[in-house]
Amino acid sequence: MNIIAEGHSKIIYATDNPDRILVYFKDTATAFHNIKRAKIVGKGLYVNKISAIIFKHLTDAGIKNHYLNLVDERSMMCLKTDVLPLRVIVRNSAAGSLSSRFGIKEGSSLSEPIYEMNYKSEQLDNPFMNEHIAVALGVVTHKEMQTISQIAHNANEVLTTVFNKCGISLIDFKLEFGRMPDGTLIIADEISPDTCRLIDKNTGIHLDKDRFRHDMGDIISAYNTVCSRLYDE
Amino acid sequence: MNIIAEGHSKIIYATDNPDRILVYFKDTATAFHNIKRAKIVGKGLYVNKISAIIFKHLTDAGIKNHYLNLVDERSMMCLKTDVLPLRVIVRNSAAGSLSSRFGIKEGSSLSEPIYEMNYKSEQLDNPFMNEHIAVALGVVTHKEMQTISQIAHNANEVLTTVFNKCGISLIDFKLEFGRMPDGTLIIADEISPDTCRLIDKNTGIHLDKDRFRHDMGDIISAYNTVCSRLYDE
Repeated sequence: MNIIAEGHSKIIYATDNPDRILVYFKDTATAFHNIKRAKIVGKGLYVNKISAIIFKHLTDAGIKNHYLNLVDERSMMCLKTDVLPLRVIVRNSAAGSLSSRFGIKEGSSLSEPIYEMNYKSEQLDNPFMNEHIAVALGVVTHKEMQTISQIAHNANEVLTTVFNKCGISLIDFKLEFGRMPDGTLIIADEISPDTCRLIDKNTGIHLDKDRFRHDMGDIISAYNTVCSRLYDE
Repeated sequence: MNIIAEGHSKIIYATDNPDRILVYFKDTATAFHNIKRAKIVGKGLYVNKISAIIFKHLTDAGIKNHYLNLVDERSMMCLKTDVLPLRVIVRNSAAGSLSSRFGIKEGSSLSEPIYEMNYKSEQLDNPFMNEHIAVALGVVTHKEMQTISQIAHNANEVLTTVFNKCGISLIDFKLEFGRMPDGTLIIADEISPDTCRLIDKNTGIHLDKDRFRHDMGDIISAYNTVCSRLYDE
């Protein structure tokens, strides 16, 4: 199969159907603008399986996304979209770069969710962006930005509920968006412990990539916990 | 007189009237998060005089600000407000940090003005902020943010017109805001070549603090040009 794109943690393949892509999840983990890198055997399997069930929950709630079906342990079939060079971060509690940039204690609850955006450019270190800049750069129109905000808000409601049922707090997560040939915007990329901060409500331990970022160990065990709880629920 | 606050380029004094402050402009110039510093003899006089006439233009256009009257060559009487820890940057063309962060060529025109916000905190290096973060930090309400956006938009219209008449392009500028005892938000701080990027329409030369930032020389001559044109107009 022809490779359309290869990122740090996945490979996008062309398929026989020009409207579809195959997303293959690798075992590579990266953090801190790719300064930290490692191979974590088995991670790709969990990211594939977790993303699939989360995308299904979103679809069930009427939130459009690129997921179609699982193909094998490490791959899913998805709709081909024109992926926008922006990342939306939705935060329910303070953590990570929000805490460090603004001096807010990690774990502080927020009066309402915070939405942030980054311009996806490794060369520019994925700078923080706002709607005015996104429009000026030609990334989106103001109307598309409204749609993206609404989807991010709705996705947060669904994901918070899904994880709550699993005894997990959704601290924050990242969304990427793809534009369909007819202009419709849908959620693309993945939604997994690589792109969400998840904390066990009972033990308070991280069940996400922070285990890799901060050398907490037990990464696969944490991803396995998230996966099992999502599929048992 | 009692000093209420002292910044890099000005001193705020209490006055006999508790509703008023005296703003005194120093000759200090700082740039790049205060890494670059210098004394530029006479700068305070021009910043005082230029800010005064710009604030008068805003008042004439119905845009509320803290300026009351000139007191002497280096000082103006202003309303006392609770100054918000945020800075609004309005950009009509790409320059400075926008260009460096997003790889946009300096001087590129923008399809529409870009508005950005920084959280005013030297300790945190004045991080880029958006409305969600400003509300979460308790800096403003969503409603106040709407007011601030409207004032920034209106101020840009007025200032662009005023500078155009002087043969000067307004590339970008910074606004700060103060909250009055009754909750009204008004423009505070200063508006001068220290806080605006200004380019001579004929010669293309900078008439602003970029002369200091980038060692272009002739700083006082540039500030004098801006001042003379504003008062001759």
